[in-house]
Amino acid sequence: MTAPAPVWRLGELAERFALELRGDAQQTVAGVATLALAGPQQLSFLSNPQYRSQMQASQAGVVVLRADDASLRDGAALIARDPYVAYARIAALFEPIAAATPGIHPSAVVDASARIDTSASIGPLCVVEAGSEIGAGAVLGPGCCVGPDCSIGAQSRLVARVTLVTRVRLGARVLVHPGAVIGSDGFGLAFERDHWIKVPQLGGVRIGDDCEIGANCTIDRGALEDTVLEEDVRLDNQIQVAHNVVIGAHTAMAGCSAVAGSARIGRYCLIGGGAGILGHLNIADRVTVTAMSLVTHSIHAAGEYSSGTPIQENRQWRRNAARFRRLDELARRVKALEKD
Amino acid sequence: MTAPAPVWRLGELAERFALELRGDAQQTVAGVATLALAGPQQLSFLSNPQYRSQMQASQAGVVVLRADDASLRDGAALIARDPYVAYARIAALFEPIAAATPGIHPSAVVDASARIDTSASIGPLCVVEAGSEIGAGAVLGPGCCVGPDCSIGAQSRLVARVTLVTRVRLGARVLVHPGAVIGSDGFGLAFERDHWIKVPQLGGVRIGDDCEIGANCTIDRGALEDTVLEEDVRLDNQIQVAHNVVIGAHTAMAGCSAVAGSARIGRYCLIGGGAGILGHLNIADRVTVTAMSLVTHSIHAAGEYSSGTPIQENRQWRRNAARFRRLDELARRVKALEKD
Amino acid sequence: MTAPAPVWRLGELAERFALELRGDAQQTVAGVATLALAGPQQLSFLSNPQYRSQMQASQAGVVVLRADDASLRDGAALIARDPYVAYARIAALFEPIAAATPGIHPSAVVDASARIDTSASIGPLCVVEAGSEIGAGAVLGPGCCVGPDCSIGAQSRLVARVTLVTRVRLGARVLVHPGAVIGSDGFGLAFERDHWIKVPQLGGVRIGDDCEIGANCTIDRGALEDTVLEEDVRLDNQIQVAHNVVIGAHTAMAGCSAVAGSARIGRYCLIGGGAGILGHLNIADRVTVTAMSLVTHSIHAAGEYSSGTPIQENRQWRRNAARFRRLDELARRVKALEKD
Repeated sequence: MTAPAPVWRLGELAERFALELRGDAQQTVAGVATLALAGPQQLSFLSNPQYRSQMQASQAGVVVLRADDASLRDGAALIARDPYVAYARIAALFEPIAAATPGIHPSAVVDASARIDTSASIGPLCVVEAGSEIGAGAVLGPGCCVGPDCSIGAQSRLVARVTLVTRVRLGARVLVHPGAVIGSDGFGLAFERDHWIKVPQLGGVRIGDDCEIGANCTIDRGALEDTVLEEDVRLDNQIQVAHNVVIGAHTAMAGCSAVAGSARIGRYCLIGGGAGILGHLNIADRVTVTAMSLVTHSIHAAGEYSSGTPIQENRQWRRNAARFRRLDELARRVKALEKD
Repeated sequence: MTAPAPVWRLGELAERFALELRGDAQQTVAGVATLALAGPQQLSFLSNPQYRSQMQASQAGVVVLRADDASLRDGAALIARDPYVAYARIAALFEPIAAATPGIHPSAVVDASARIDTSASIGPLCVVEAGSEIGAGAVLGPGCCVGPDCSIGAQSRLVARVTLVTRVRLGARVLVHPGAVIGSDGFGLAFERDHWIKVPQLGGVRIGDDCEIGANCTIDRGALEDTVLEEDVRLDNQIQVAHNVVIGAHTAMAGCSAVAGSARIGRYCLIGGGAGILGHLNIADRVTVTAMSLVTHSIHAAGEYSSGTPIQENRQWRRNAARFRRLDELARRVKALEKD
Repeated sequence: MTAPAPVWRLGELAERFALELRGDAQQTVAGVATLALAGPQQLSFLSNPQYRSQMQASQAGVVVLRADDASLRDGAALIARDPYVAYARIAALFEPIAAATPGIHPSAVVDASARIDTSASIGPLCVVEAGSEIGAGAVLGPGCCVGPDCSIGAQSRLVARVTLVTRVRLGARVLVHPGAVIGSDGFGLAFERDHWIKVPQLGGVRIGDDCEIGANCTIDRGALEDTVLEEDVRLDNQIQVAHNVVIGAHTAMAGCSAVAGSARIGRYCLIGGGAGILGHLNIADRVTVTAMSLVTHSIHAAGEYSSGTPIQENRQWRRNAARFRRLDELARRVKALEKD
């Protein structure tokens, strides 16, 4: 069951997170909420200037905001350079996370050759296979399968029903959400005359420290070398990462995006929802790809890239789409007119 | 094992579903099939006028059809205003569903604080965590994980291997297919100088009565408030619903579609397969979005909306796509010609 | 744990795979690697002519290559008509696959009416329900659920956490990766006045011999007849196959592609990543659909097909996309100019 919500004094919060307090250090906060719904016992934040008027009408006991916005606030305020970052840190104090019990649940099936740190927690109905290693403070929630020759770094957490297939190495503090499958066979096939031959997938997967892998993501292991996510890579749900891909540190990918085999994505990239990146491409650092765009060639310069057409009322769209079918001809006709 | 198939008399079917019978009330039906394959012991239906000639050639013992089409039918017929709806109801009589045994399978791991209705069925290798509640007649098939502080309404059914992470509330008669993950962390990140900070996801998920959630769907819980599906929302497989999304009652989404954070979709919408809806948008009631379209701005009027270009033979498409790269320039050249 | 790596002599490899050897038959190979990383104890291959110079610089003990390329190689070589196919076969010798133990793991839950071949292996925490049949040498890895009335052919392998819902028939040597859900309800709904009615899904799924189904794929069972994958169909990860689809033999689909209900795809097709095929269409044999294309009408001729627009720098793309919104008008203006 959830423990009773903790209560913090504004003075404690200001000190803990090095924020400037405007208001009574003894005032208490028992939770966080949106500006619209927060009450006098709750903390909220103002990050997007669009919400200034909402902030002014808010019943929140205290608001985290920028120094520039402080004059707009009547009640208590905590001044932060980045209110959203400060809010994220404060909100974590109010997150009800049940402490995992160290040890192996009696219903789990753990191979005798697996090395489980005594401070790790292996939940009910987990399976840990031969030669795998679970680090200090790591938590496997219910129903996780860790195949042979995997390792999970300290303080990492597999929320529930995560599968590591084989030769998967997770760094420290990695968070993996339910349904994710890491280390499955890459899609390697050779065509022989009239049928497919499977190409053995002999590599593994390396996931750096502080990565987060969303629900139902799939990350295949490499054909010969490893598939790699450097540190602090953040994957939303249902993302597909094919074999031999390398994703640079601090890159974030939104839901349902996909990267084909052997592509290399730089650091600090932002890949939009449903976007696709073809195989064997190189994407530079600090590239943004907008939602549902398809990257078909390497991108050598930082910047924002897009493909697709705008959403329109269907009847109008049909007429435009029909013209697209003959766009090359249209361009030739324009050229002919220019020559007249 | 499957019980022997039930047998119904046409008179019973006509009475039970308030249909007009043309034919012998004593004639029996032992199953349903397509017009092409049905035999004399089977019932079929005619809904799409395209299949009229197939119906006339059908060996089906009885056909459900509209009054308008009855004259085309020689054999027995059941007259319905909507033959597909009537067929759906009749077909349900022939569906082999094994009755779930009430009680908790000995291999399941159920926290002592969970409240399980005595008529509920908790299947083999399920996990039910602290503070969760399972309603009357609810069924958890094999391998489901219900995390802390969840509730499952009466007669709801988790087919197999479903995960409810935390703070998930399912209404009555909700059907969730295998691999679905509901209540996972929303994708909330704050960027601090050179790395990501995780924003705690403190909300939950509320799923209304009579919703259906397809296989391997992901529905994240809210950051502060709840992610909401109103009643009778129908999700096909592999759909991604981000945190704080609200989907209006009776909306249906086809496979692999996705909704980004805080978008609000109206009632009675139809979202095509693979379509995407960006974050923070509002979609009016009765909006249809065609397959693989990307909605990038709010839609305020009912109607059908599309984006994309038509499928073409690749060589032809390449020429048109190359022209698209310079479409703005082409439009300027046309303007220049007009000024001549 | 992994057994010690096997060692092969070049003479043995040449004989086993009917390859011509240039070099010392007694030379040994202890593994495979890329041209760039292979050392004197490792075998590599040259298939793509782009890597010729890499091959010439390679430290590999032996290289599999075409007769045409043999003159470029100083060290030992194995000559093959298709070096990639030959490599795939040789690499399989070095794949560390733990032999599955025949029998039923004590933690598995198997219905008394299920028929399990004595040579099959049912892993920890699996569930096999009533009336299902597991063939000779078949392997169910940890956490698999096989619902009622399924059958799994000889030598098939469910890697881990696979779900077969009901009425699923797998042929021989089928490989299914973790998280895949086969035989879930098709998305069948009838709209009655103001709400949805579920249409029972009474068919099954038939998967032919030698098929491979990727991680987190979903393949729904048919409404009345079966959903069918013919032999040697290869699905990458996160693919959605709707009810009543038929996929012809030897067709391969890349990650995140999807096929809507009742579509029929021919033999030897290649469907690109993220591509979509609408319902009730027919796709001929030997059709290639490029990545993220949407097929909206039947395709009657072999060939390559595409839709979409090229990736561009966002500012440039915005200007072009804005013009697309009025492309029909632009075409009319060109027509008017032509009439002048």
